[in-house]
Amino acid sequence: MTYLKNNLTLLTDFYELTMAGGYFEENMQDTIATFDMFYRRNPDKGGFAVMAGLEQVVDYLKDLKFTDADIDFLREKGIFSEAFLEYLRHFNFTCDVWAVEEGTPIFPGEPIVTVRGPLIQTQLVETMILLTINHQSLIATKASRIVRAAAGRAVMEFGSRRAHSYDAAVYGARAAYIGGVAGTACTIADRDYGIPALGTMAHSWIQSFDNEYDAFAAYARRYPNSCTLLVDTYNVLKSGIPNAIRTFDTILKPLGCRPKGIRIDSGDITYLAGKARKMLDEAGYPDCAICASNSLDEYIIKDMLRQGAPIDSFGVGERLITASSEPVFGGVYKLVSVCRNGVETPRIKISENVAKITNPCRKDLYRLYDKESGKALADVITLFGETIDDTRPYTIFDPEHTWKRKTLENFRCVNLRRQIFENGKCIYQCPPLKAIRERYAQQLTTLWDEVRRFENPHTYYVDLSQKLWDTKDRLLHGSR
Amino acid sequence: MTYLKNNLTLLTDFYELTMAGGYFEENMQDTIATFDMFYRRNPDKGGFAVMAGLEQVVDYLKDLKFTDADIDFLREKGIFSEAFLEYLRHFNFTCDVWAVEEGTPIFPGEPIVTVRGPLIQTQLVETMILLTINHQSLIATKASRIVRAAAGRAVMEFGSRRAHSYDAAVYGARAAYIGGVAGTACTIADRDYGIPALGTMAHSWIQSFDNEYDAFAAYARRYPNSCTLLVDTYNVLKSGIPNAIRTFDTILKPLGCRPKGIRIDSGDITYLAGKARKMLDEAGYPDCAICASNSLDEYIIKDMLRQGAPIDSFGVGERLITASSEPVFGGVYKLVSVCRNGVETPRIKISENVAKITNPCRKDLYRLYDKESGKALADVITLFGETIDDTRPYTIFDPEHTWKRKTLENFRCVNLRRQIFENGKCIYQCPPLKAIRERYAQQLTTLWDEVRRFENPHTYYVDLSQKLWDTKDRLLHGSR
Repeated sequence: MTYLKNNLTLLTDFYELTMAGGYFEENMQDTIATFDMFYRRNPDKGGFAVMAGLEQVVDYLKDLKFTDADIDFLREKGIFSEAFLEYLRHFNFTCDVWAVEEGTPIFPGEPIVTVRGPLIQTQLVETMILLTINHQSLIATKASRIVRAAAGRAVMEFGSRRAHSYDAAVYGARAAYIGGVAGTACTIADRDYGIPALGTMAHSWIQSFDNEYDAFAAYARRYPNSCTLLVDTYNVLKSGIPNAIRTFDTILKPLGCRPKGIRIDSGDITYLAGKARKMLDEAGYPDCAICASNSLDEYIIKDMLRQGAPIDSFGVGERLITASSEPVFGGVYKLVSVCRNGVETPRIKISENVAKITNPCRKDLYRLYDKESGKALADVITLFGETIDDTRPYTIFDPEHTWKRKTLENFRCVNLRRQIFENGKCIYQCPPLKAIRERYAQQLTTLWDEVRRFENPHTYYVDLSQKLWDTKDRLLHGSR
Repeated sequence: MTYLKNNLTLLTDFYELTMAGGYFEENMQDTIATFDMFYRRNPDKGGFAVMAGLEQVVDYLKDLKFTDADIDFLREKGIFSEAFLEYLRHFNFTCDVWAVEEGTPIFPGEPIVTVRGPLIQTQLVETMILLTINHQSLIATKASRIVRAAAGRAVMEFGSRRAHSYDAAVYGARAAYIGGVAGTACTIADRDYGIPALGTMAHSWIQSFDNEYDAFAAYARRYPNSCTLLVDTYNVLKSGIPNAIRTFDTILKPLGCRPKGIRIDSGDITYLAGKARKMLDEAGYPDCAICASNSLDEYIIKDMLRQGAPIDSFGVGERLITASSEPVFGGVYKLVSVCRNGVETPRIKISENVAKITNPCRKDLYRLYDKESGKALADVITLFGETIDDTRPYTIFDPEHTWKRKTLENFRCVNLRRQIFENGKCIYQCPPLKAIRERYAQQLTTLWDEVRRFENPHTYYVDLSQKLWDTKDRLLHGSR
């Protein structure tokens, strides 16, 4: 953990603190609250999203504390009592936390993180939990889309220079790796997270030499085993490819090395790649890969491949690292239950907008997999502690249109969430990044093609158990 | 500086290092290169952008060094020579840097940052300079638009939870403050940058109590002098406003306090604000402000105000902190000159796309202000060291259509850039953030309304001096 070694306790919305101060004065600091994080809509009208960022949430929660400087700063705001400041000075995280593991496909409405504990604590951590999971899930989801569009070809994350600041570059590369990219241009993401960093040359390399051939030759001499040449500084077909071939012939061949590839970063890449492929093949370099870059995303990649562009790998920058087509992952964090004197009272947020009505109560989240195909059939949100017996048929129903029912048989039921903290103590071992990436790749195979497709994907079933639905219905009617 | 205390030297694209290794082996490490950072297009089809991020660039450049762990990491890549690694171990930044000061309106094509020095060094810093200036200028520019749309009403930055990671929240708040927001919800941005952090309550505050009035009353008792109540948890007009008025009457009035405001975070805010205003006025609280939030941006704010919504301040979150309408600020960093054995050779990047042809040469950048109105008339990019005599008429011309000419008189010529580093030593004192914000506010008054407007703004003149144009023209013809 390089970046989070700075204590980020005060990276919280100020209202978390004014509310905390209020709860303290009202003697409500030990009221037990339960908050769920969930999101309402998949980015880019996709069929699912990819959970990411949990490791950084864990690191943050482990490190929660107010320094003396923090306390002094808050005192100067002039609105907090000394008793409350003293409380913060001795702040000690004691909550329970459950979460969906990183690399898991997730769906709207699911409680992907739940925090239960003293009201002040559950409230204080809202901003950082949302910020972290929203950002990394956004990028992992976008990467998943771009990598799937590339249909087996490697995608490289090239976006640091357009990232929204430093952490966005590093954790963006981390999230993109979970979502399937093969590597990154971001060197520090390799040092700190083991994401393979790759890269060869910019146009300035070519321009620093007297001519293109000299630049290529110098590079090939230096890096004969990883020689990918950028061929579009002057003219791809008239200059770049001929000079690349000359370099392969005169520098690499005598060394017994094969070229790794060429990269095209501008122009009509589909057209140029086709011509370049032919020239390389005829020169005896059918194994020389063609890499494309320049403002790519899943739509452009799909279109290039549809046109038959012979491209072997893609470098994707700004549109991945900012998820530019939809740069907001709208996860929210809502109060779902309050417990006072041992009495648990579910909370619901009513809205004229039906989609904004929250699911009340402490919950569990299950995924039902078909035993035969291994495919995910549906997710079911239940009351906390409720179980689903997967040895017997189970009927799910659409929570908005309850007459839509379906009985599932021969399925395997998996609790999608793990307990991460127990009484403020971390009881979860974050898996290595590569294992998360593998988990994602494996989980992806459990989604039907209809859920994975880009246009009009099937809406995956996320249903409520009868008991949870009954409670919600009662609260909705009771509120009128 | 809280976040940059982590050494970010390796937050660089890997190709900067492969190129550096190549330059070293070619004995080109001391070739003197000049790189310009510039951008090509204003975000959101606006008339200008706002320079931001220089302070963080300065901090980064001051801190450039490779640790032993960095060297070990690079050695393991297996492609760098020991001699080069030893060079990196003793790496010492010795470049000259010029930049436009933060808070200055900037325009496409202008050299907003220039780095001149040994080729390896100038290349290595590309990623971080672009990343930093791109991010903060993006957010400052977006904030400028949103604040201008609010037409004098306060805008609060509320976006941390949707920021692209931690730095994006903090430096995003910093950039938004430069662009004119009144404050932020991000507490740590107040502690570290003095940006006023504000905030009162979330819906969960209301839901934690048995009813809305109890929640309001508790808050008002605790914060009688800064009492802004969130009124849309249940029903704004039937419940929220009546309970707020009751709270003002029963809690604040006996204390001799006036309410600060109410906040509406959902629904048809324009309609609700009108009704709420009337209810508050009739209850004797015409001074109670109305704050609106919920996925706002400059377009929605303008539309609300056009409809006459009586809103006094705006909380703007995700669409500001991610600049969601256009989340990429496309600044680039291009080689413009190479100096070997004392001979300076300008470099140009030719492209079929005329807009992508770079301006060669070391340069200066001047802004010409009308002496009478104080308005900015044009910017002129000249050869380095070239001056403009503002006691005499000066003819500018469009660099793409050179017959379009205009002679300026009675103007004041200002060098827009300051030297920031000299031989690797920082010679620039970064101004306090408040001074940068004031600089922006003052500079904004020098732009004509035609440049500031949102729809079809006037394209501000950014012209080349005759000498620079002649050089570029010669290189363009010579390259054919």
